[in-house]
Amino acid sequence: MDIRKSLVSALVVAASGAASAADSPHEASHSIAYPAGWQNWSTIGVSHRTDNNTLRVILGNEIAVAAARAGQTNPWPDGAILGKVVWKDTELANWKAATAPGAFVHAEFMFRDSAKYADTYGWGWARWVGLEQKAFNEGPQVCIACHTPVKDRDWVFTDPATFPAMVPASE
Amino acid sequence: MDIRKSLVSALVVAASGAASAADSPHEASHSIAYPAGWQNWSTIGVSHRTDNNTLRVILGNEIAVAAARAGQTNPWPDGAILGKVVWKDTELANWKAATAPGAFVHAEFMFRDSAKYADTYGWGWARWVGLEQKAFNEGPQVCIACHTPVKDRDWVFTDPATFPAMVPASE
Repeated sequence: MDIRKSLVSALVVAASGAASAADSPHEASHSIAYPAGWQNWSTIGVSHRTDNNTLRVILGNEIAVAAARAGQTNPWPDGAILGKVVWKDTELANWKAATAPGAFVHAEFMFRDSAKYADTYGWGWARWVGLEQKAFNEGPQVCIACHTPVKDRDWVFTDPATFPAMVPASE
Repeated sequence: MDIRKSLVSALVVAASGAASAADSPHEASHSIAYPAGWQNWSTIGVSHRTDNNTLRVILGNEIAVAAARAGQTNPWPDGAILGKVVWKDTELANWKAATAPGAFVHAEFMFRDSAKYADTYGWGWARWVGLEQKAFNEGPQVCIACHTPVKDRDWVFTDPATFPAMVPASE
């Protein structure tokens, strides 16, 4: 890429960053815009980490959920976004042997785009912390370091949970 | 209700039962038709039961999710459907301190309709078992017996998980 093209690209990136900041109340994380509406995405999996006492639900956008249900996850398709939503453990008041979500910790995301994120293994890595959803900007290497044990699984820990086949809606 | 009206009602019920059976590959559970599309519903909560080693995600239809997010859950509104999806525990291969979903066990549902289900505390109780989704028909009293500790919480164990406020989509 020559220097003029580079400058044009930099301006385009800066302009789209400004547009995102204007549209969303949340700052970008690692230059990635906040994925509005993730709270209503469908479930791909769940996990309970006993090393840091957190419960998680793993959600996905439509592309990710379709890939998960079809078992097409190594690699995940471009356009897939995975979200991991994390809460501290609490005990369910009326069933002591059940652990349930307590305080909200953060929501973290992997955005699949093999070209755009070629430098970070085909994924954009982002996190928003706390109920105020403060952008995490300490660098994608923090995310990548933790995910290195699963680099041969397209950098994803989650095995999508098994679901019964969908029945088409009858009306 | 006179005997003619009773007979007409019985025929209507029988006819709609037949229609449901024709539309869905799954039998009704406690006379409740299979809720097509529940796999894509949004998340209300998660739980991990250490007494029977199962992980659960609690999903809801749109009415239930809106009520959960707004904290309007005692009582839940008519039309709300809650789904609890259950898997046996397994260990995450690449992170030993994480428990993840193994074999699918069943999906069970509570259908809120104060009038229709007045005899069973305002809820219709249903369950479909295994990946083949075989209808459970041993009677709603089986469900109700287990839920009795939460009769003052509108019969629902789940405390909806806390989510950050939704951001409207920017495009």
